Amino acid sequence: MSTDWTTLWASRTRNIRASAIRELLKLTARPEVISFAGGLPATETLPIQAITEACARILSTCPEKALQYGPTEGHLPLREQIAARYIKNCVPVTPDNLVITTGSQQGLDLVGRTLIDHGDLIVTEAPTYVGALQAWRPCSPVFIDLPVDHDGMPVERIDLGLPIQFVYVLPNFQNPSGVSLSLERRHQLVEMAHRHRFIIVEDDPYRALRYSGEDLPALVEIEAQMLGSKWDTHGRVIHLGTLSKVMAPGLRIGWILAPSTAVRMFVLAKQGADLHSSTLTQFIAETLMRDGTMEANYPFLLKVYRERRDTMLEALHEDLSDHASWTHPEGGLFIWLTAPGLHTQQLFTKAVERNVAFVPGTNFFANGGGDETMRLNFSCMPPERIREGIERLGHIIIQAQAEAPVKSS
Amino acid sequence: MSTDWTTLWASRTRNIRASAIRELLKLTARPEVISFAGGLPATETLPIQAITEACARILSTCPEKALQYGPTEGHLPLREQIAARYIKNCVPVTPDNLVITTGSQQGLDLVGRTLIDHGDLIVTEAPTYVGALQAWRPCSPVFIDLPVDHDGMPVERIDLGLPIQFVYVLPNFQNPSGVSLSLERRHQLVEMAHRHRFIIVEDDPYRALRYSGEDLPALVEIEAQMLGSKWDTHGRVIHLGTLSKVMAPGLRIGWILAPSTAVRMFVLAKQGADLHSSTLTQFIAETLMRDGTMEANYPFLLKVYRERRDTMLEALHEDLSDHASWTHPEGGLFIWLTAPGLHTQQLFTKAVERNVAFVPGTNFFANGGGDETMRLNFSCMPPERIREGIERLGHIIIQAQAEAPVKSS
Repeated sequence: MSTDWTTLWASRTRNIRASAIRELLKLTARPEVISFAGGLPATETLPIQAITEACARILSTCPEKALQYGPTEGHLPLREQIAARYIKNCVPVTPDNLVITTGSQQGLDLVGRTLIDHGDLIVTEAPTYVGALQAWRPCSPVFIDLPVDHDGMPVERIDLGLPIQFVYVLPNFQNPSGVSLSLERRHQLVEMAHRHRFIIVEDDPYRALRYSGEDLPALVEIEAQMLGSKWDTHGRVIHLGTLSKVMAPGLRIGWILAPSTAVRMFVLAKQGADLHSSTLTQFIAETLMRDGTMEANYPFLLKVYRERRDTMLEALHEDLSDHASWTHPEGGLFIWLTAPGLHTQQLFTKAVERNVAFVPGTNFFANGGGDETMRLNFSCMPPERIREGIERLGHIIIQAQAEAPVKSS
Repeated sequence: MSTDWTTLWASRTRNIRASAIRELLKLTARPEVISFAGGLPATETLPIQAITEACARILSTCPEKALQYGPTEGHLPLREQIAARYIKNCVPVTPDNLVITTGSQQGLDLVGRTLIDHGDLIVTEAPTYVGALQAWRPCSPVFIDLPVDHDGMPVERIDLGLPIQFVYVLPNFQNPSGVSLSLERRHQLVEMAHRHRFIIVEDDPYRALRYSGEDLPALVEIEAQMLGSKWDTHGRVIHLGTLSKVMAPGLRIGWILAPSTAVRMFVLAKQGADLHSSTLTQFIAETLMRDGTMEANYPFLLKVYRERRDTMLEALHEDLSDHASWTHPEGGLFIWLTAPGLHTQQLFTKAVERNVAFVPGTNFFANGGGDETMRLNFSCMPPERIREGIERLGHIIIQAQAEAPVKSS
């Protein structure tokens, strides 16, 4: 008798959904497709030489440690390197405030496992990072999503009468919209969290990828400034970081920075989840942070990405000025486009047939919506391909709008 | 106001416990302690040279792939390498039957997330692998634990009147007891699973580490033999594998092998958990499997471990014959010792003071018990240290038994 797995799965699997993006990416793998659908760092920016040298050095000097089991909380020298970068920004961090995770996706997962009960209220941006929704949906929270504007999440619209468990925010060049939370709102949100005793989950993969405008302090920095030496006992910000965008995603190195009491719980949850992240890749990451090759690569990284962002913005301006609007991110990897009258999910198949791809925006909404929107990635393609791809996309959008039934207003 | 995390954690965290073993290991880190408490592979058996060469080759030929994001299900050539080894044993495996996990601990976690609802019945061995208990307790199943005998889990004692969700079994040189499931019971268990429609979760990290006796087929092999070409649709065995004991734990490479329908669900769960395991370490593992250096290392590995097992068995025989009994494992990393009249959890502190360590057996029981037992690891210490450690342990046990109140019978 064949095995009927549908009768076997646990009830929480009913909320597990395939990442539409990962599924879409499979359709866009043909080389003739110009894909703005991914979110990959540009291959040519990877610090390959530095990683090669680090690997060789590690495997000749301490292979017995780098290949062996390690502590769940992560390689201590790596946590020290990460801590040093926050200390420089005046957060009184010790290695006890850090747990190394298998990418920041695992950070999201550990947050969900330990903080979300069925029905808990979570405030998110709309749109928001789809990986967070995917990590948390099996815990069946209720998402309250607030549409972002040019200054990010409208924190003044958070309903403080509700028993909010946490607010999830990507403060810098948010995936997918590209917008950033303004300085004023950052202060406001931290103050609200303390006054009304909710937690903030700050997901910050992109801060170093700023191409214009001024660096803004992380929420955890604002909180540390406010609390001073009391941060470890009084803090309410759980901050997620990653090396995937500034070193190499394939190393799968991220971290959670939080008050030590919270970190201890994340470590316990991680023990059950995967014991610990790869020791070897932690050693590699530590080497590049310690010897400065990670940061030495930033100017090149920024130069490449800035040019690509600018190219995409110019091409959009040339090809779609009268037909769509889009964000003008100061950093990150994504531009968010809104094309009135279109259903981008339906448009996707046609676009791929014509060898250009994007991610339909609706995937990034916790509670639906965003039918007229799409996410465009500019990081992983040379400028001439970006221009060509936007031209193709422009034709498709303009044609679809011409064919679309005129909405009565 | 200080943050009261205890009021914030999700209800499932009440079942999260620290791994006593990982906590104990911290106490045993002093170099003068002879520790039988760990479960590490011997550092000197790690294929360091092969890994170094593989790393250099990968980073010179395909760094842009090895350092980039990869598919959630894992690097296809690695899945092909793993599949080939099961095909050789007549399981009709394709890469679609495999998902690469961050160590087999993540395999246990994915099984728990997708298969365990609150109150589900899970049959385990007593004692059993503590990492499985740790992974699954947050899902609050009910464990039915069956005391192992010399032939492993007494499968004939499984209560078939109960709605069992799955049976969890480590068929070879079980951690912690060292016993193996007999061939007869393997057949019996697979037949029971099909007749009574429960799932088997087969956790098999140690099969290659056999120092005596004859290799026995995995449960998934017995099932595949029974089902033939219908295995993918009719199979009920979820099989977990890992390279941690035969290549290097620090790579964090494990896998789940199961019918493709089940694998698809595990892949979805893994997307939310960590997107994918380290690409670089997957490439390394694939290289060592493809070029044969993994298996070429086995004879050396077996020679080292066989000698250590034999040394420990001899030392126990010399020092503790009249005071304790223990298992005689044909492979793996552990010997299980029972010392009547003792409370090994209480004995632990005294032992560490006298510079020898073990894991108190009670940690390995889903529902308590095992107070008189302990787990002894023989893999990560040279023979002379094993002899010295067992001598120390012998004194402590004999002294404690002399001091113990005589039990009325």
